[in-house]
Amino acid sequence: MRTRTALCLLGLALSASAQRFVRFVATDGKEYTGDAILPPNDTDAAHSTQAKVITGDILGNFTVTNQVKTIKTLLAPLAPERIRTVRCVGFNYVAHAMEANVTIPQFPILFYKPWTALSTPSAPIPVTAGYQNQTNFTSEMDYETELVVVMKKKAFNITEEVALDHVLGYAAGHDVSHRGWQIARGGQPQPQYSMGKGADGWAPWGPAIVSTSIITDPQTLNLWTKVNGVTMQNDTTASMIFGVAQLVSFFSMGITLLPGDVIFTGTPSGVNLGKADPQWLTNGDVVEVGTENIGTCTNTITYT
Amino acid sequence: MRTRTALCLLGLALSASAQRFVRFVATDGKEYTGDAILPPNDTDAAHSTQAKVITGDILGNFTVTNQVKTIKTLLAPLAPERIRTVRCVGFNYVAHAMEANVTIPQFPILFYKPWTALSTPSAPIPVTAGYQNQTNFTSEMDYETELVVVMKKKAFNITEEVALDHVLGYAAGHDVSHRGWQIARGGQPQPQYSMGKGADGWAPWGPAIVSTSIITDPQTLNLWTKVNGVTMQNDTTASMIFGVAQLVSFFSMGITLLPGDVIFTGTPSGVNLGKADPQWLTNGDVVEVGTENIGTCTNTITYT
Repeated sequence: MRTRTALCLLGLALSASAQRFVRFVATDGKEYTGDAILPPNDTDAAHSTQAKVITGDILGNFTVTNQVKTIKTLLAPLAPERIRTVRCVGFNYVAHAMEANVTIPQFPILFYKPWTALSTPSAPIPVTAGYQNQTNFTSEMDYETELVVVMKKKAFNITEEVALDHVLGYAAGHDVSHRGWQIARGGQPQPQYSMGKGADGWAPWGPAIVSTSIITDPQTLNLWTKVNGVTMQNDTTASMIFGVAQLVSFFSMGITLLPGDVIFTGTPSGVNLGKADPQWLTNGDVVEVGTENIGTCTNTITYT
Repeated sequence: MRTRTALCLLGLALSASAQRFVRFVATDGKEYTGDAILPPNDTDAAHSTQAKVITGDILGNFTVTNQVKTIKTLLAPLAPERIRTVRCVGFNYVAHAMEANVTIPQFPILFYKPWTALSTPSAPIPVTAGYQNQTNFTSEMDYETELVVVMKKKAFNITEEVALDHVLGYAAGHDVSHRGWQIARGGQPQPQYSMGKGADGWAPWGPAIVSTSIITDPQTLNLWTKVNGVTMQNDTTASMIFGVAQLVSFFSMGITLLPGDVIFTGTPSGVNLGKADPQWLTNGDVVEVGTENIGTCTNTITYT
């Protein structure tokens, strides 16, 4: 009996430690939520070809079954309609604030994207006419790799100490940004970033939500951006000014955070903003953003 | 037969011209959507004691029935879960931009509130510890009366000419603002307004959504704020820099606006921001915001 109990507990523990939540269309044409089965020696869930089917709700009670399905297309890890609020953080890495020539923030700088910006790990990034080059207006499209936090439990006025208990896990995300609409055209002298960040499809994320049982410390992860295969950003979440626990606690100040809310936690240095010779993204550019132990989103800038 | 058809058409026309959509708990304890029956010589739906029950979905197909219910409590005109995105406009009245000493915007200044900020025409406005007076930190709570636009149809890259065809109607709204968190603590030199505007309950709105068949021109409406009965703001939507049609068209630039999305269209002058001797709102202050032909929201600042 003791052995059986021990094995049973071990089984639960193993199950709990293997959650890389993905949502996908399988080769049978149906949509599933699953626990990604990683390829050998590879932690990028975008490379997974199979997943164990999950029944129930990953924001509530769920079961990882032994039924294995073959992945045809990875979707965003949560359906967009499950996500009520997308919070983002500005200038949360010292080197990024310095390259953009802005003051190191004293408090987290919060802004929002509408949920309609959320996209998948492989969808095109649409750029409509208003964001393309025009007479006297350069299309200043830029990339931003970010660690994304996914909330599991309701949080209101919570402390940093308990903040991570409210988190389901972490994903990689791309805070697609248009510097013209973000800053010069965002309103002077206090530009709001909204129009420069909020277009449909300007927040690819995924490829998985990696649970807090796998990523126990979110401040130790390498994250990067490659544009057309060339590395443009490469840093670690250890460089954040405000860590995940601080952000979650701060954003809950008088505000209810809900299960499924996501937080894009800011980007490290290496973006075009502030460069003497910026190479703004243009039609056809392939942008890969990635985070260690989570995986990559690879999306193509697509003029529409 | 002709007479009957004419009467029938007249009936439809009257029905269409009488839509002041309210959501309420009736004296029978149940929740209804209705068409408010106004008191004599009064266009404030907050004073309505009865409404005709509406069946169906005011964002889709619906019928105004002849069943009359007695209103016990007015709720927000749409349930919060129906509203996916709350857009707000900064400095959309010249005199307000001037009093705040900011440049007249060249493009609409967009920011967001989370949907959890939405509240009812009479609910308390909660102010938790982080927004109250602290050592070396004055609680700079301020009022902002605004016209609120409610979307009826999906809109993407639409022109100004067709913008109002996508609107269901208009409500009064209160963009409750904390200037400390909005500006000095919102991030320098580019403060994001999010933390100063987004607390739970900081967007009372209602008391009704008055349909575009009643308000055919949204740029002719008086709007005001009273604090403890004293008028603090009093202007007209004719003073907007960017009118409703321009705002809806602009915000749809590469972005899908959805039925039920709301837009707070900015506040006129008369707020505390920029005043030499500001009278910041404090615990117990009763704030009434109102818009002509729509009605009022009356909410009490409540330290919690």
